[in-house]
Amino acid sequence: MTPINHKKFEEVTLSTESIFQGKIISLQVDTVRLPNGNIATREIVKHPGAVAVLAIVDDRMLVVEQYRKPLERNQIEIPAGKLDAGEDPLDAAKRELEEETGYSCDTLKLISSFYTSPGFADEIIHLYVAEQLIKGEAHLDEDEFLDVESITLDQAQQYMREGRISDAKTITAVYAWQVYKLTGSF
Amino acid sequence: MTPINHKKFEEVTLSTESIFQGKIISLQVDTVRLPNGNIATREIVKHPGAVAVLAIVDDRMLVVEQYRKPLERNQIEIPAGKLDAGEDPLDAAKRELEEETGYSCDTLKLISSFYTSPGFADEIIHLYVAEQLIKGEAHLDEDEFLDVESITLDQAQQYMREGRISDAKTITAVYAWQVYKLTGSF
Repeated sequence: MTPINHKKFEEVTLSTESIFQGKIISLQVDTVRLPNGNIATREIVKHPGAVAVLAIVDDRMLVVEQYRKPLERNQIEIPAGKLDAGEDPLDAAKRELEEETGYSCDTLKLISSFYTSPGFADEIIHLYVAEQLIKGEAHLDEDEFLDVESITLDQAQQYMREGRISDAKTITAVYAWQVYKLTGSF
Repeated sequence: MTPINHKKFEEVTLSTESIFQGKIISLQVDTVRLPNGNIATREIVKHPGAVAVLAIVDDRMLVVEQYRKPLERNQIEIPAGKLDAGEDPLDAAKRELEEETGYSCDTLKLISSFYTSPGFADEIIHLYVAEQLIKGEAHLDEDEFLDVESITLDQAQQYMREGRISDAKTITAVYAWQVYKLTGSF
């Protein structure tokens, strides 16, 4: 068996120009040599990574409604958040679930990890499922505003049709949940 | 029934600083007033939007392997690409499918449109399914390098486990395909 060559079409970095260092993302432009020898540039957003949780309580999934400034509207999404520096994704998933919804869970399982926009960003989201949940109190940051609700699979699919759910991680979670209900595994 | 308030937690823009205008993305930092009156900043990447196609030929999905500079490795993904200025997403989906794989299809159907990273970017991907495909010749740009292959659902799921498929649009497409096989609809 031929080993997989993950670098077959490698674009070799000739130089990197740092454009912006923000609180959440940074931006750089790399000049690269393509496989044919031509020179090109690549605009690259660096992101610390994030976690998201498909949390199921009494056959309903927990969702949060919050304002998404890039879209200039509220969106309904599964609980999620960025990794703190050096934070283990599993710990981050437990933390975000508890902060945003009040529910805690000791037995989160990883469904999958995926890159959101591999063409221009390195953001990765680790998606977990939580099924044995203990109810508690949410504790949002002072500047965090959201509503929590729980919805059935039918409602989630209706929200998708209406565009109220329209982000990649939540749609992935809804499909994963549907597959789990149909087949017994993710 | 109470109308849905998509602006319930609105963050009002007080000023916008343009940081970068690239070939593909641009970056701005907005200063906003939060619902509690506090002031915050939001780092926002603007993107032209993209299309992706779940193209099924003889019960196999078409995928392309290409180098993703932000990840510094090859990835296996469904055919996809950015919208040209003013381009209709359906036209873009037909164009990208044909350019990257050589296959054409006149009956693409929209599965869903989703935002990849609504926390920091406005990128939307329109995901289509193509089932009646006509084989032709791929015609890549001079500076575009990729391999095309077709894989079964089992292989796609294996690639997901191996991390060779690990981007949001392709994972969404694999789940959608699995649901379609199980239920007859997306």
